[in-house]
Amino acid sequence: MCCGICHTDLHQAKNDLGMSNYPMVPGHEVVGEVLEVGSDVSKFRVGDIVGVGCIVGCCRNCRPCDSDNEQYCLKKIWSYNDVYTDGKPTQGGFAGSMVVDQKFVVNIPEGMAPEQVAPLLCAGVTVYSPLNHFGLMGSGLRGGILGLGGVGHMGVKIAKAMGHHVTVISSSDKKKVEALEHLGADDYLVSSDAEGMQKAADSLDYIIDTVPVFHPLEPYLSLLKLDGKLILTGVINTPLQFVTPMWKANSLSFALFSLSKFCIGRKSITGSFIGSMKETEEMLNFCKEKNLTSMIEVVKMDYINTAMERLEKNDVRYRFVVDVAGSKLDQ
Amino acid sequence: MCCGICHTDLHQAKNDLGMSNYPMVPGHEVVGEVLEVGSDVSKFRVGDIVGVGCIVGCCRNCRPCDSDNEQYCLKKIWSYNDVYTDGKPTQGGFAGSMVVDQKFVVNIPEGMAPEQVAPLLCAGVTVYSPLNHFGLMGSGLRGGILGLGGVGHMGVKIAKAMGHHVTVISSSDKKKVEALEHLGADDYLVSSDAEGMQKAADSLDYIIDTVPVFHPLEPYLSLLKLDGKLILTGVINTPLQFVTPMWKANSLSFALFSLSKFCIGRKSITGSFIGSMKETEEMLNFCKEKNLTSMIEVVKMDYINTAMERLEKNDVRYRFVVDVAGSKLDQ
Repeated sequence: MCCGICHTDLHQAKNDLGMSNYPMVPGHEVVGEVLEVGSDVSKFRVGDIVGVGCIVGCCRNCRPCDSDNEQYCLKKIWSYNDVYTDGKPTQGGFAGSMVVDQKFVVNIPEGMAPEQVAPLLCAGVTVYSPLNHFGLMGSGLRGGILGLGGVGHMGVKIAKAMGHHVTVISSSDKKKVEALEHLGADDYLVSSDAEGMQKAADSLDYIIDTVPVFHPLEPYLSLLKLDGKLILTGVINTPLQFVTPMWKANSLSFALFSLSKFCIGRKSITGSFIGSMKETEEMLNFCKEKNLTSMIEVVKMDYINTAMERLEKNDVRYRFVVDVAGSKLDQ
Repeated sequence: MCCGICHTDLHQAKNDLGMSNYPMVPGHEVVGEVLEVGSDVSKFRVGDIVGVGCIVGCCRNCRPCDSDNEQYCLKKIWSYNDVYTDGKPTQGGFAGSMVVDQKFVVNIPEGMAPEQVAPLLCAGVTVYSPLNHFGLMGSGLRGGILGLGGVGHMGVKIAKAMGHHVTVISSSDKKKVEALEHLGADDYLVSSDAEGMQKAADSLDYIIDTVPVFHPLEPYLSLLKLDGKLILTGVINTPLQFVTPMWKANSLSFALFSLSKFCIGRKSITGSFIGSMKETEEMLNFCKEKNLTSMIEVVKMDYINTAMERLEKNDVRYRFVVDVAGSKLDQ
């Protein structure tokens, strides 16, 4: 029916990560209707509205798999640009149909609009999972969302729905009004504003870092309280050989150096990668209960190249969703 | 009575951190006998054997102070090379006597030898605190101790006493026999041994990084399991302006880059700084109960310059303790 466009799709389509295989059918924020079920399928019936995210397979036999953390399985199978157990390439959601093991399919709660749900399947769970895992769901926490793209805007919405005080941190003040007025953020911080950053030092319980390009971490560590967590979720597309221009290396070194030298208050730098199927289900129920939606721009398939170009320039509020069913792919 | 020599004393004496004030009386692993008590002192009596660690003051009014984490108080007062509330310089344990607020004094459990206890007051609590704080006290965990100096050797002993499987990670195999045979470590890994490191990938619940000089983190992150923690405890003496030679910056950038790009399993890089007074007391009781001692070389005060030189070359098994009382400072 429809499929969101994530920044990773851009990386994959352009081979930014150096591991793309063509031809490729991207798309991993997929919502569709069940057309057919296999004989062992118990969870779904024909006609159900369901979702598929980034992963369609795992080994089911390792520590992560055994603990409902299959997104960290080293043998996980990506929804596209990967090889399935039958040796064939996996293909994603920019397509009329796909075949997926029921373990990697979730029910979309009744009453949620498919195009609204699509971005939740990657962007939504990417912020929900670390808040859940690191014990950051309680109300009253003070959170920062670094970067206001597809993941970041869901971060603001989900964190607000949990009752957090939410500060958006951005490289410019371009999105200030929309962050505060449309998304409901409580505060807005421009990372180059030394005075504002200084004032906000030692104030946040966590920062979800959604920025998908290389950036220094030290300025954000300094915003955290004792035991605060800087949670990296962005996939960075800078190839390894280009990560070391002096100023960049400098900033990063400084980040860790400070951490170690000044022992700045038992803060953590950690990573989080999408979420488990269990968390995806919980997140969908949470969004349904809180009446949470994504902010999207729906486009047809013939607009996808333009959408990709606009996404690269961060020119979208906040997620493109392709209306696959309405794009008449067969004609 | 006696006082351990910590690597930080070396940094301070040599002004490696650029913040030394002279004249200076170092020493922050202090054990002595109470000679006199103020009128409000309730915890101690003349004749008690007590210990003092890194800190002798804090604001008592901030979030860290209110939560028994006074070691993270931004207004904490160091045991030496700092200024006390009366405006006078603080002076450490390489001295015949010192005056300390009772809040920053701990009772030494009966039956523990003063010179054995001294290294516990900094080195011991530096490893005990993160294991306690991060919920890593349970038996059966697999831990790594990176660096086998004063802190590292206490790390092995304390982690073993908690029932952990302990791997010592070192830059050479020089300490292999003593780590395995004398300290009771279960495994020994040389960080330049690519095959051994590869075999040990994804195997540890935590690594306590005690290395007090600049080093890359990426190789150690790869040893951690899902949710594993790399806990930095070493104070790094490289001045800021010298942290950016290319290979060094390169390694560190790579560490964080991997973390982000490959989202290697929700691992954390975090820091821990000594421990609270409460944890120091708990640690002493733990060591008493487990019959844990430090491995030390006791020296007189007139040997201290040589001891410092040997410490710099890591030529000590594993901590120098100065027999202050036996050094006849008054003569």
